[in-house]
Amino acid sequence: MPGNSFGQIFRITTCGESHHGAQGVIVDGCPALLDISVDDIQKELDRRKPGQSFITTDRRESDIIHILSGVFKGKTTGTPILLLAYNEDMRPEDYELLKNIYRPSHADYTYQMKYGIRDYQGSGRASARETLARVAAGAIAKKYLQQKLNIEIFSYVEQVADIRTDMDYHEISAEMIDKNIIRCPDANVANKMIALIEKVKKEGDSVGGIIKGVIRGVPIGLGEPVFDKLSADLGKAMLSINAVKGFEIGKGFASVLMRGSEHNDLLHIQNGKVNFTTNHSGGTLGGISTGQDIYFRVAFKPVATIAKMQSTITSEGTSTNLEIKGRHDPCVLPRAVPIVDAMSALVVMDHYLRYKTEKEKT
Amino acid sequence: MPGNSFGQIFRITTCGESHHGAQGVIVDGCPALLDISVDDIQKELDRRKPGQSFITTDRRESDIIHILSGVFKGKTTGTPILLLAYNEDMRPEDYELLKNIYRPSHADYTYQMKYGIRDYQGSGRASARETLARVAAGAIAKKYLQQKLNIEIFSYVEQVADIRTDMDYHEISAEMIDKNIIRCPDANVANKMIALIEKVKKEGDSVGGIIKGVIRGVPIGLGEPVFDKLSADLGKAMLSINAVKGFEIGKGFASVLMRGSEHNDLLHIQNGKVNFTTNHSGGTLGGISTGQDIYFRVAFKPVATIAKMQSTITSEGTSTNLEIKGRHDPCVLPRAVPIVDAMSALVVMDHYLRYKTEKEKT
Amino acid sequence: MPGNSFGQIFRITTCGESHHGAQGVIVDGCPALLDISVDDIQKELDRRKPGQSFITTDRRESDIIHILSGVFKGKTTGTPILLLAYNEDMRPEDYELLKNIYRPSHADYTYQMKYGIRDYQGSGRASARETLARVAAGAIAKKYLQQKLNIEIFSYVEQVADIRTDMDYHEISAEMIDKNIIRCPDANVANKMIALIEKVKKEGDSVGGIIKGVIRGVPIGLGEPVFDKLSADLGKAMLSINAVKGFEIGKGFASVLMRGSEHNDLLHIQNGKVNFTTNHSGGTLGGISTGQDIYFRVAFKPVATIAKMQSTITSEGTSTNLEIKGRHDPCVLPRAVPIVDAMSALVVMDHYLRYKTEKEKT
Amino acid sequence: MPGNSFGQIFRITTCGESHHGAQGVIVDGCPALLDISVDDIQKELDRRKPGQSFITTDRRESDIIHILSGVFKGKTTGTPILLLAYNEDMRPEDYELLKNIYRPSHADYTYQMKYGIRDYQGSGRASARETLARVAAGAIAKKYLQQKLNIEIFSYVEQVADIRTDMDYHEISAEMIDKNIIRCPDANVANKMIALIEKVKKEGDSVGGIIKGVIRGVPIGLGEPVFDKLSADLGKAMLSINAVKGFEIGKGFASVLMRGSEHNDLLHIQNGKVNFTTNHSGGTLGGISTGQDIYFRVAFKPVATIAKMQSTITSEGTSTNLEIKGRHDPCVLPRAVPIVDAMSALVVMDHYLRYKTEKEKT
Repeated sequence: MPGNSFGQIFRITTCGESHHGAQGVIVDGCPALLDISVDDIQKELDRRKPGQSFITTDRRESDIIHILSGVFKGKTTGTPILLLAYNEDMRPEDYELLKNIYRPSHADYTYQMKYGIRDYQGSGRASARETLARVAAGAIAKKYLQQKLNIEIFSYVEQVADIRTDMDYHEISAEMIDKNIIRCPDANVANKMIALIEKVKKEGDSVGGIIKGVIRGVPIGLGEPVFDKLSADLGKAMLSINAVKGFEIGKGFASVLMRGSEHNDLLHIQNGKVNFTTNHSGGTLGGISTGQDIYFRVAFKPVATIAKMQSTITSEGTSTNLEIKGRHDPCVLPRAVPIVDAMSALVVMDHYLRYKTEKEKT
Repeated sequence: MPGNSFGQIFRITTCGESHHGAQGVIVDGCPALLDISVDDIQKELDRRKPGQSFITTDRRESDIIHILSGVFKGKTTGTPILLLAYNEDMRPEDYELLKNIYRPSHADYTYQMKYGIRDYQGSGRASARETLARVAAGAIAKKYLQQKLNIEIFSYVEQVADIRTDMDYHEISAEMIDKNIIRCPDANVANKMIALIEKVKKEGDSVGGIIKGVIRGVPIGLGEPVFDKLSADLGKAMLSINAVKGFEIGKGFASVLMRGSEHNDLLHIQNGKVNFTTNHSGGTLGGISTGQDIYFRVAFKPVATIAKMQSTITSEGTSTNLEIKGRHDPCVLPRAVPIVDAMSALVVMDHYLRYKTEKEKT
Repeated sequence: MPGNSFGQIFRITTCGESHHGAQGVIVDGCPALLDISVDDIQKELDRRKPGQSFITTDRRESDIIHILSGVFKGKTTGTPILLLAYNEDMRPEDYELLKNIYRPSHADYTYQMKYGIRDYQGSGRASARETLARVAAGAIAKKYLQQKLNIEIFSYVEQVADIRTDMDYHEISAEMIDKNIIRCPDANVANKMIALIEKVKKEGDSVGGIIKGVIRGVPIGLGEPVFDKLSADLGKAMLSINAVKGFEIGKGFASVLMRGSEHNDLLHIQNGKVNFTTNHSGGTLGGISTGQDIYFRVAFKPVATIAKMQSTITSEGTSTNLEIKGRHDPCVLPRAVPIVDAMSALVVMDHYLRYKTEKEKT
Repeated sequence: MPGNSFGQIFRITTCGESHHGAQGVIVDGCPALLDISVDDIQKELDRRKPGQSFITTDRRESDIIHILSGVFKGKTTGTPILLLAYNEDMRPEDYELLKNIYRPSHADYTYQMKYGIRDYQGSGRASARETLARVAAGAIAKKYLQQKLNIEIFSYVEQVADIRTDMDYHEISAEMIDKNIIRCPDANVANKMIALIEKVKKEGDSVGGIIKGVIRGVPIGLGEPVFDKLSADLGKAMLSINAVKGFEIGKGFASVLMRGSEHNDLLHIQNGKVNFTTNHSGGTLGGISTGQDIYFRVAFKPVATIAKMQSTITSEGTSTNLEIKGRHDPCVLPRAVPIVDAMSALVVMDHYLRYKTEKEKT
């Protein structure tokens, strides 16, 4: 199958380039009778929107979402939902210079080689603008999970370059995250992150960072062995986001330094209930949710678009130099937080519906 | 769809529990006319086999593979290939004690909660024995890729606990890897790793580690934006292996500490050919292969089965203590190397076939 | 997976209700570099459009198609293509009366029971207006098949009620079909069909009929045993169209009356080429195309919406009588011809791309 | 995806050629805790078995089924179930003569053209022996549907050549069908059918016929618009069986001769319950089950293998004559009855699990 769909039962199919037409998504498989409004979706999109602060790109997009099918009098009907945001602040002429040049560490070269053609205006389909559709679809999943199952999904910026918060995620609630423009709930560290991004922006450079994702309240039993483990599908979801280069769940890479006797999460009965002493596994065992918090970390490389002069090549096969003047984010992290949330919601929603097929009626 | 299939076009479906019947896999979508023999598959299985050295489990399985369909006079016919290895050294009675106990950090608890039943003999389906089928199927993919496209796939143990080789993967060839029982091509480091595993085994404990995977010679253009990026599918493949808790490609988590100007892989023309100055991206851009080497790292947690006394619970809901006497690996890394290879081969093979659908005839 | 997608590699996902927003489709997996314009699509939509003659519904829809992604400077780019037609002539108020009434032989009752909600305005998603998206997507497939592979696809009305043409499809070319408003290339029979439909319309009743589909020039080898036979996928495609109740390929039901010795299509070599004496199989053997013409017949039941008084029930569970005053087609056949064409094109296109994955490079 | 899988959630993947190894199927997605035994499966296989009467092929196969995974102490565990029957009465030498000859109306020619290779022993994968795996998997689905949902599935031979029973399916129960070797519950007609088949067999010829399928007790709401209509998936299922050339549901092709006012199934309330006056639709509206009986007809062409001399071609491209001496069925209908049952069960089971994903918990 082609690559623009995600999910098996709660299945989204996205489309849209950066500088033409619209960003769109069809959500198929959403259960009927969910209350859904434009506002439910818009509020998530506004968190992803360009131009929301001085540390994001200057591009202005209102990113107004339209619901064109699948919702009747405020409720989903079980039929496919089409969500659409028309592109507005398009400056295709900005990109005429890039028509025959492959920007370093962008997908220009690979798209051209793969397809024999590429939409060179604003990165075309390879633009991070594509994630708008993910966030829109994810908003529906997030609402369902919250309303029907009381599942809470949030994520935050844990690290920018070498600046990192040591706050425990247990101390963090969803409300704290949007208190500052970098979306790090640790106010002091947030200020340092913002200062660094400003500095880097002035230098015409970019930085990466790490987002921590948390999912609370997932019922025991989600995840489909042996390939569609919940952890594996979360990993794929995150690794499919532009600029993501790493994913770990639970103790992740750090578990390598632990002995089994340290890492194992022991069980005991407390007040008649199953309890885990620790949660090094990050909420899944054998790829199936344990009922504990799911937590993971996602590594974003520094943004490829920088204002510095770089050597590169043309489509005619000559070496050249390039200095990009366009609008771009010096750091994608603050705008990536709602994207990580959306992908979490899409994975959990899909696995919840898959899980329902297994449960006996009686 | 259920979770026991992997791949879209080169699609495998696996089955089998640890202590009954057989491990099996149907490979559907393999192109016709590939020369394939039992030996091609057996040699990969022998690398995964239990009991191959004193640092692996004592369980003895010959793991003889049978080809029951899809191959005619030594060639694939385009029809589904059934590969089967019957289980032999089964000691279901060893597991009667575990019937009502959930081993810590195993999938006992989650399987029971999910399905309302579990095959408690040798971990049932959650046993790492399940990976036999992956290696068998991967051997076919690996042979195709090597024979038809000259793609080379290998992986090796880079780290066990805190013992790590700094060898550059460029210095490593596939032949060097099986020179020792830990499958680390750096002889000195390998000895230290082996010594540590012996020590840990005596202590009744276990350790984790990191496997580095390398894929050379992948044509430009494999990977399907925006969700089925080559990097995302490799990530999912690796994260679906038992005990894997992290995946990173290219510089991965370390890229977070680099500026864009450092991380970007510059392009230039050298002797009339496209050349990258560096390969921090790890061989994909926009989720599509660049033609450079693909390299990634996979983190394995320490094995959950340890001989030490641990607190846990029974299925009746009481706390208890458990000391496991069964046969197990103190470190899965050496046997996991062929599994990582197999998953790499399956991902690349599948994406190669998907890529073929896009190529114009003219 | 949800039910609004069709095809494995050339994959469409449709959406849209009858009286809100828009009809839409995302076409994912279309090869790059195909020339495609709004006109290519519009001309097929105009054949399906309501109000095109006095024997179709009076509803007026311009059905203007918009291409919102996936096409750059007149060529496909390999990225998903969004096609959209906004609904115009909407009269939701016409349907307020039907809010609590289930129309006989419509999907009102089953949608309500399945989803617990239904969009009762203009049949919602169950409206035949949904086929607009199929025709739009099919137009792209049809163009590809014609341009790149010289495959010709057409269909025509063979029978309306008991009025039937005996013309051999070999005598028919695509150009002959649109010569009259019923789309039967046999002029005399066409006139009789039209007269019958007029009569039936006046009586407030409806009629069904049979469309014959023909596909010429399909290469040998399309179709995937054992489940995704070309014939089986054509059958499913046709049976998924509203009002279709039967499908047969080749001699179909009539083959039952033949002996094997009569039915078998003998082979011989003619002028150095493989030749079949007959084509009773209808162009497939073992579910794989033979290179001969593919031909099949599709049975449409009479339209459910009639103006006569009928007994039915309300959603409150009481018996009632119903006389529908809305706009409707007395016979769907003439407008269904482009739908059958579209579904043929979608099946053949998808199977052609699947077939490409099997072909050896060398 | 390749073509050897069927179903989305209750998903089977089959394999196996006629004269080597085994027939196999992996059933993935079967809910846990279903009681299943070898006997449950064997009894269905025995209905399909060759050599069961003098009007079927002389080939002798015991078709003993083995359950190699997914069942623990008599219950399904939610993990994939591998079913296997080893081929026994293999006479590959019988087929050496056919190595370079394409039998008329067989898949020899198309397999060779598609794959560049074919297993010419006993038709290889194109053999109707492939349906063994369908029947085995279908037996599990049938048991689940019967036990958990009280759904009854049966089918019978309605017509052989021009000999046809006019019995109403309402008068028929599952028990009546196996009373004679042709599986037509109308004893008089059955005798005529058997006599005809004997005659045809002596003549070295073959005949086709029609099987009627019935499914009772399906809950309202199964079927996924707009492409995966229950009727469309039943159609595909039946059309994927060897030798099937036509499918119709409800009144099918005969509905073409009815007016809408005749065909519409009127609703009324009877004793407080929804009741349909007629069931011309055959149990689905808008592709969704109505709760009424589902009934359909499947047309089988006469068997391609006949003993008469036929002209054909060799793989070297010369014309030749062929007289086939092998063992074959003069009429597939009696052995096809359990296959139709199996495919019905697989479709309904899969749609039942899909339907479960839509149902609200609260």
